[in-house]
Amino acid sequence: MSTEALFGQVTLIGIGLIGSSIARALKGVKLADRVVAADLSPGVIARVTELGIADEATTDLAAAVRQADLVICCVPVGAMGLVAEVIGPHLKPGCIVSDVGSTKGSIVAQMAPHMPAGVHLIPAHPVAGTEHSGPDSGFAALFQDRWCIITPVPGSDQAAVDKLAAFWQALGSKTEVMAPDHHDLVLAITSHVPHLIAYNIVGTASDLEQVTESEVIKFSAGGFRDFTRIAASDPTMWRDVFLHNKEAVLEVLGRFTEDLIALQRNIRWGQGDQLFDLFTRTRAIRRSIIDQRQDTADPDFGRGRK
Amino acid sequence: MSTEALFGQVTLIGIGLIGSSIARALKGVKLADRVVAADLSPGVIARVTELGIADEATTDLAAAVRQADLVICCVPVGAMGLVAEVIGPHLKPGCIVSDVGSTKGSIVAQMAPHMPAGVHLIPAHPVAGTEHSGPDSGFAALFQDRWCIITPVPGSDQAAVDKLAAFWQALGSKTEVMAPDHHDLVLAITSHVPHLIAYNIVGTASDLEQVTESEVIKFSAGGFRDFTRIAASDPTMWRDVFLHNKEAVLEVLGRFTEDLIALQRNIRWGQGDQLFDLFTRTRAIRRSIIDQRQDTADPDFGRGRK
Ligand SMILES: NC(=O)c1ccc[n+]([C@@H]2O[C@H](COP(=O)([O-])OP(=O)(O)OC[C@H]3O[C@@H](n4cnc5c(N)ncnc54)[C@H](OP(=O)(O)O)[C@@H]3O)[C@@H](O)[C@H]2O)c1
Ligand SMILES: NC(=O)c1ccc[n+]([C@@H]2O[C@H](COP(=O)([O-])OP(=O)(O)OC[C@H]3O[C@@H](n4cnc5c(N)ncnc54)[C@H](OP(=O)(O)O)[C@@H]3O)[C@@H](O)[C@H]2O)c1
Repeated sequence: MSTEALFGQVTLIGIGLIGSSIARALKGVKLADRVVAADLSPGVIARVTELGIADEATTDLAAAVRQADLVICCVPVGAMGLVAEVIGPHLKPGCIVSDVGSTKGSIVAQMAPHMPAGVHLIPAHPVAGTEHSGPDSGFAALFQDRWCIITPVPGSDQAAVDKLAAFWQALGSKTEVMAPDHHDLVLAITSHVPHLIAYNIVGTASDLEQVTESEVIKFSAGGFRDFTRIAASDPTMWRDVFLHNKEAVLEVLGRFTEDLIALQRNIRWGQGDQLFDLFTRTRAIRRSIIDQRQDTADPDFGRGRK
Repeated sequence: MSTEALFGQVTLIGIGLIGSSIARALKGVKLADRVVAADLSPGVIARVTELGIADEATTDLAAAVRQADLVICCVPVGAMGLVAEVIGPHLKPGCIVSDVGSTKGSIVAQMAPHMPAGVHLIPAHPVAGTEHSGPDSGFAALFQDRWCIITPVPGSDQAAVDKLAAFWQALGSKTEVMAPDHHDLVLAITSHVPHLIAYNIVGTASDLEQVTESEVIKFSAGGFRDFTRIAASDPTMWRDVFLHNKEAVLEVLGRFTEDLIALQRNIRWGQGDQLFDLFTRTRAIRRSIIDQRQDTADPDFGRGRK
């Protein structure tokens, strides 16, 4: 057993895209002496064992956390409360309990009541993902160059916050500390509402009577296909996100709709200058995202060049 | 001079992303004995000459079309009428005049009045592109496996339509014939409204007071960045698209907004089942797009794996 590892035992609960990516990333760094994978589904545990991405894999959540120094819950947002309730009584003092959920205010509300004294609840959210799910879809480089937002609650132990930050940095992420409510607003605009409108446009397209589904598919290279990628994301995960970040999503959605109605009037009245101004303004943001390495500059995501 | 080429002289007018991609693609196939590139901008013509992607490059549109058997106008939709007016008197009988504009009804309205008797106006739209523009951004493979929609008008010569279809097929495209109005509706849902809502969400994000631009950029990997790619597309081109496909865009936008308001109510009232149903339904469309090779199945467009 190494004396350098940041944690003795790290337990991951829920081994889907995110959980299995953490497990894979942990193989390449000296962060934990022992990695335990836990999932309620025997099928997932069998697959994790086959993949060999954890030192131990089990469906027994209580047993999985008993020796853990860090527990990271990687289940859908709506299941966090249940997981906390199941593992709460079995956590050892000093243990850090964290998560990867896409909402944060509701995670605190769901999990905090089940945390025994002496355990540090420090929610976090790695802003990284793909449209795929399940243990086969994960990969070690997922968190590389991405941001992980850590949202301590009043009274969180600073040493524990620093340790969790060091963990994510070792996986290749940059970290930022934020209040849970602010996280929820930032993610509403950078992730949740974009997903909602992607799901919505795909729904609208498939319901239009005058245009066949076959036409929508054939001519999707005009822009539509980018939205379908996002709209292929896991339904359970995203249902939970919208139900658990309701206020911020509704607030941002209100602004989006207001702005869209203004654009609609510009089109109706032929106000080309206003359209041109907006379309020019939005380019600058794209440039900054590429400069800050949060996306590739390859045209068309590099899809076009063969 | 080969006897096999489909056309003697092909003239491209407007050498940006699309025009220069056609020029480059023509290098690899025996479709024209001679390719002439024309653009009003001397800077573009100088660059085309440097790139060596045409047999001749000129700012004189009239001279460029005089010997042409096929003229393809690759300028923004709003400039098509002007180009037609300039070249009309110089076209030779039997010449096919086509275009690549993203709208079709308005192209017919703008160009048809300037076409002399004996010239075949056959509008077309290759459904392929990237967010970049200008002669340096083009590449030969752009049209490979993509669809090109040909929209003949009443009275169009069938032999000319077939010849234009053969031209696009030789560049790697699949072709479909459609009425201009139907094209405009299909593209409103598969391209124009997606672009509009992408521009709009990026605008909303940059106007939110509670979230800084720096936060939007940092955390864009949650989904937002995909929209910024589309919202970085050329402002002139897209202003023209919305002004010239007003009716269809407003119709589809009305449906989009109606559907979005229903989703908003589902979120407000916690109707998770409705959300889950929509999010499940949209996955099937993604699968068909990938099956029909209109997009890559790589997770996250292959961005995540290094
Ligand atoms: N996907 C992304 O892009 C992304 C990005 C950042 C954060 N996140 C967050 O990461 C978390 C996990 O997402 P993921 O993409 O990794 O999802 P995933 O691939 O679907 O994995 C979720 C895992 O949780 C288990 N699970 C589902 N429902 C459960 C329940 N009621 N009780 C206990 N376990 C349950 C699943 O087991 P079964 O397969 O047996 O159901 C699966 O192993 C979510 O909170 C999500 O918000 C996702
Ligand atoms: N980009 C796409 O994804 C895409 C896809 C399918 C179809 N299209 C259609 O293709 C056409 C060209 O788009 P593109 O992406 O190739 O644009 P682009 O790269 O910006 O090139 C447009 C060309 O037209 C010239 N031009 C601009 N305004 C003009 C005017 N008023 N009169 C004469 N020439 C003018 C430009 O010259 P300057 O540089 O000197 O202005 C430039 O050479 C548009 O009709 C567009 O709707 C585009």
